[in-house]
Amino acid sequence: MGPHPAVAAIRLAVRRVLHDVLTEHTHRTTGTGHPAAAGPAHDGTPLVLVACSGGADSMALASALAFEARKLPLRAGGITVDHGLQEGSDTRAAEVADRMTALGLTPAEAVTVTVGREGGPEAAARDARYAALDAAAERHGATAVLLGHTRDDQAETVLLGLARGSGIRSLSGMAAVSGTHGRYRRPFLQLDRQTVRKACIAQELAVWDDPHNTDPAYTRSRLRHEGLPALEKALGKGVVEALARTAQLSRDDADALDTWAADAETAVRDEAGALACDKLSGLPPAVRRRVLRRAVIAEGAPAGSLFARHIEEVDRLITGWHGQGAINLPGRVEARRQGGRLVIRQG
Amino acid sequence: MGPHPAVAAIRLAVRRVLHDVLTEHTHRTTGTGHPAAAGPAHDGTPLVLVACSGGADSMALASALAFEARKLPLRAGGITVDHGLQEGSDTRAAEVADRMTALGLTPAEAVTVTVGREGGPEAAARDARYAALDAAAERHGATAVLLGHTRDDQAETVLLGLARGSGIRSLSGMAAVSGTHGRYRRPFLQLDRQTVRKACIAQELAVWDDPHNTDPAYTRSRLRHEGLPALEKALGKGVVEALARTAQLSRDDADALDTWAADAETAVRDEAGALACDKLSGLPPAVRRRVLRRAVIAEGAPAGSLFARHIEEVDRLITGWHGQGAINLPGRVEARRQGGRLVIRQG
Repeated sequence: MGPHPAVAAIRLAVRRVLHDVLTEHTHRTTGTGHPAAAGPAHDGTPLVLVACSGGADSMALASALAFEARKLPLRAGGITVDHGLQEGSDTRAAEVADRMTALGLTPAEAVTVTVGREGGPEAAARDARYAALDAAAERHGATAVLLGHTRDDQAETVLLGLARGSGIRSLSGMAAVSGTHGRYRRPFLQLDRQTVRKACIAQELAVWDDPHNTDPAYTRSRLRHEGLPALEKALGKGVVEALARTAQLSRDDADALDTWAADAETAVRDEAGALACDKLSGLPPAVRRRVLRRAVIAEGAPAGSLFARHIEEVDRLITGWHGQGAINLPGRVEARRQGGRLVIRQG
Repeated sequence: MGPHPAVAAIRLAVRRVLHDVLTEHTHRTTGTGHPAAAGPAHDGTPLVLVACSGGADSMALASALAFEARKLPLRAGGITVDHGLQEGSDTRAAEVADRMTALGLTPAEAVTVTVGREGGPEAAARDARYAALDAAAERHGATAVLLGHTRDDQAETVLLGLARGSGIRSLSGMAAVSGTHGRYRRPFLQLDRQTVRKACIAQELAVWDDPHNTDPAYTRSRLRHEGLPALEKALGKGVVEALARTAQLSRDDADALDTWAADAETAVRDEAGALACDKLSGLPPAVRRRVLRRAVIAEGAPAGSLFARHIEEVDRLITGWHGQGAINLPGRVEARRQGGRLVIRQG
């Protein structure tokens, strides 16, 4: 008798990613690609780590990684991050490390981080977590770090991006492959949360439910427990899948338009390297706005503080010119039109 | 004392659109643009019609059109469509026509349509309505037809598009200008529904509430009364505005990518006019998929039946070639790879 269908599904998803990781590793170590990651444990057999909170999604991922790695020329380990935000989080992190060891993962490590305040509690915790995972990957010379995000997480991320109203890049959710040299991989991005949870039950894995996930003080939690269910009630059961598909399509579209903008930026500069207004006005609005955004960021405006309305105002120097003065942008950057040229510089 | 702020807001929105319509009309009649619309009432003074259901949004629009047109070299009229779907709808349509006459609109006409079944009740009613508005515009030689869609309607349309999961074109909502020669205009697309409703109250306009708008049997009604409020509760009050901004950005992005795909389609054909697989594989995925979609539609596949998964399967003939056979597509169109070429034809 084969494994439970949900267990088969999570293992297949992990197997595909490990296959990619091994193929790319071979390319790298035979000198045809990026340099291999440095690290003390880099003895030829690549190491894949799982980032594991102890919750159902990442415990399922840990179990599938442990199972699949045994059949491959791979070592498998796990990292759990103690954010130190809840009473007894250190005890729990040690427990998660023990569970990873029991699954056969080596190393199985708990690392402690200090969460700052920048960008709000969720963003600060995420930043601290990724910094710790990066450091652990470097320390162990890991080739890849697997993350347990599911299709449902992806749908939530798309809706969070939608609420920013800042265009298709923010609709593109999480990438299946991200980070330096494609370090982070998300094998479950096309699997629904229910399948992953079933895989835990079928394997009798002990899991820990993070109370943050159900705390209505957190935007993502409100979205998960109220926003998305209401949307599904209004629009039908396919909403999560549609949102995940939107993420993939938006990502490809945003990538293509970024490529176009990078090419166009060279073409719209005159001999002196200045942005020529007549050339800019010939670009499609979507491309022109991206060129302007790139130029403003290149002069020192922080990307995170630069909103669509800023770029629209700069764009009106091209498309709605009536002698308006200089436009002040974040990071003390200023844009003005001067004799048919767009001059952008930091004050 | 000036008008109520909400009344001032709806009038400003309509004034801007009438200004555009007049400017374009002048261009056309002096022979620099599209040919002028033909029709018996075309005596030199352009006619602008409002499509009015008698609901708050379109009654507000009718009132603002009547007010602003008086100050301009414009005639203003109105059309109300009787869908014949409810008991007494004919009486009500006559009443709406009377209300338009009372506002000073000439013609003020009720037209009756027969709603079919194609695409479901909402789509069938919409198709019949636009056909009737097109016919009325032609009959009266109208230069433009104003529609009362608000920013809230736009947000709902974006969510409906999101639920299809078919990419950024379906996120682009309704255009401010659409139809043949830009006939349809939506002056309220950046105004919120609440402002428009306040303008009705301030002007003591009698309005009629369509029971369909609150009937949970309709997707849009469920979205309006349950889906969107739940999303606002989870994500904050700016959701409607963010969705409307997403529509505009997505529309511009989709337009730019369509332009790119149209150019690329020529470039990827060999001397014999066949699609060359090696050239296709050099395009960004977002552009390649659009080129493939165009090519499949050009061979006779109905656009409405062609889904993202169909195009992905065709794309794998380029990016994941392992000798697979012909792919069957809607409209008896078939795609196969033959000696480095992609052959698409109707069977």
